[in-house]
Amino acid sequence: MIAIGERINGQFLDMKKAIKEKDAKIVRDHALNQTKAGASWLDINTGTAAANPEDAIKWLVETVQETCDTPIALDSQKLPVIRAGLSVARKDVPILLNSVSADPEKLDRWLPIAKEHNTAIVCLTMDKDGISQDVARRLENCTTIVGKALEYEIPLDKIYIDPVVIPIGVAQNQPNFLFEVLDQLPQLFGADISTTCGLSNISNGCRERHLINRMMLTMLVAHGMKSAIVDVYDKELMDAWITADLLRNRMIYNDSYLESARSK
Amino acid sequence: MIAIGERINGQFLDMKKAIKEKDAKIVRDHALNQTKAGASWLDINTGTAAANPEDAIKWLVETVQETCDTPIALDSQKLPVIRAGLSVARKDVPILLNSVSADPEKLDRWLPIAKEHNTAIVCLTMDKDGISQDVARRLENCTTIVGKALEYEIPLDKIYIDPVVIPIGVAQNQPNFLFEVLDQLPQLFGADISTTCGLSNISNGCRERHLINRMMLTMLVAHGMKSAIVDVYDKELMDAWITADLLRNRMIYNDSYLESARSK
Repeated sequence: MIAIGERINGQFLDMKKAIKEKDAKIVRDHALNQTKAGASWLDINTGTAAANPEDAIKWLVETVQETCDTPIALDSQKLPVIRAGLSVARKDVPILLNSVSADPEKLDRWLPIAKEHNTAIVCLTMDKDGISQDVARRLENCTTIVGKALEYEIPLDKIYIDPVVIPIGVAQNQPNFLFEVLDQLPQLFGADISTTCGLSNISNGCRERHLINRMMLTMLVAHGMKSAIVDVYDKELMDAWITADLLRNRMIYNDSYLESARSK
Repeated sequence: MIAIGERINGQFLDMKKAIKEKDAKIVRDHALNQTKAGASWLDINTGTAAANPEDAIKWLVETVQETCDTPIALDSQKLPVIRAGLSVARKDVPILLNSVSADPEKLDRWLPIAKEHNTAIVCLTMDKDGISQDVARRLENCTTIVGKALEYEIPLDKIYIDPVVIPIGVAQNQPNFLFEVLDQLPQLFGADISTTCGLSNISNGCRERHLINRMMLTMLVAHGMKSAIVDVYDKELMDAWITADLLRNRMIYNDSYLESARSK
C-alpha cells in the first residue's frame, strides 16, 4: 500500500488560509497526522489561491521537511513551481513529481529534471487532445511515456502511470477502461512500472462519496493499482485498502492484520 | 447483481431448530426477508442435522414456495436430495442446482437432470483430487464442465462456474488465482457463462469477517463475477455490491443509486 496523502493542498480551506497567513502549525499537523494515518508520501500542492505559487511551494516544502522525513510529492502542472520546490527540498528524502501529461514535448522538459534530481514522476495518460476516453489511447500514451523514460534512462519503477480517474457521474464507462489498462500495463511493460491515480475524483459531485471512493480503490487494487492519492484520514478507506492488499497476497494474514498494518 | 441468499441452511442454529420442529414461520421469515434484502435466489440447504434430508428439503421447498415466488437454489452434494427437492418444486419458478464438481462421471449424472428440469446448475472447479490449487487446473476443470454442458445441450448461461473460495487464513495465494480465472473465463468460453461462489468461506475463522467478505466480493465483481451466495442481511455488503456494479457500469448512476437498487 503506497498512499499519497492529498491534504496539503491549497484547495482545502484550512490550507488556503495556512498558505495565505504562513501558519506553519496547520501544515505541520497535516504532515504528521497524515504520516500517522498511513501516508507513504505527502502531496504538496499550493492550489490556485497562492499569490506567488513558487514562494508558496518553497515554504510548504520547508515546513513539511522540518517536521518529518516522509517522502513528498511536488504537485503542480507548472514546471517553475516544481523547480522551486526542488530547489529547497532535502536531498535525503525521496521526491515524486506530480504530474506531466503524455505530450512528448512536455516529457522532454520534465523527464530530464526527474533524471537530474533522481525523483519519481507521475505521468498522466492524457495528451494534447485531453483525457483519453478509451483503453487504446491510454495505452498508446503509456507507450509514449515509457519510450521517453527509456530515452532518458529513467528506470520504470520511477514512472507512476496515472490512467486518469473521471467522476462516475460524468462518464460511467471509464472505470472498466481503467481496470483494463491496469491489467495490460505489466504485460506490456513488465512488473516494475508503477501506477497511481487521484482517487477522490471518482466521486466528484456524488452523494455517496466515501463509499464510492472505497469501492473504486478496492477494485483498482484488485486490478493491481500500486498507489493512489487519497484522503488518508478516511479510516474506512484505509482499512479497505489494507484488506484489499491482504486479498491480493501483498501482506501476511494474521487475526490482527488491520492493527499490524495500521501501526507500520 | 445476482445475490443468492445463504440463510435457509440447517447449519444455522435457528434453521436447524426450524427443520427439526417443522417451524414454518422461521423459514417463511427468511424467505421473505432475504427477498426484501435483495436476494435474487434463495439457497435451500438442509444442513447435516436433518434426520431425513430428502423429507427435509421437500418441506423446505414447499414452505418457501408457498411464501414467495423467488427462484430457489437446491443446495446439496447428494443427488437423491436434489431429486427430492425437484419432485415438489413449482415449475413456474426458476431453479438452480447447487452443486456438482468437475468430475466427468458426476457431470454425467447431474447434467441430464438439469437438462430435464430446465434448471441452472453450479459447477465447482474441483475434481476427484480435491480443490484445485492453481489457475491452470481450475481452467482445465472449466473445460471439462463446458464440454459436458455442450454434450448435454445446456446453454452456457445456465452454467454457474464456482472457482471455489478458500479461507484467506488458510491459503493466501488463492484470491489472485480466482481473479485470473474470472478474467480468462469469458475469453475462453464467451460472455454468456455465469459465475458464482460461496463468498463467506473467504473469512472462515477470521476476526474481521464482514470487512473481508465485503472487500473480496468487491474484488470479485471487479473481475466480472456475476453472482455469489452471500449473507444478504449484511447491508454494508449489499451496498458495496451495488456500488461495485455501478463502477462496472452495470447500472445507471443517479445520486440515489443505492436507494434505487435497494428498492428493486
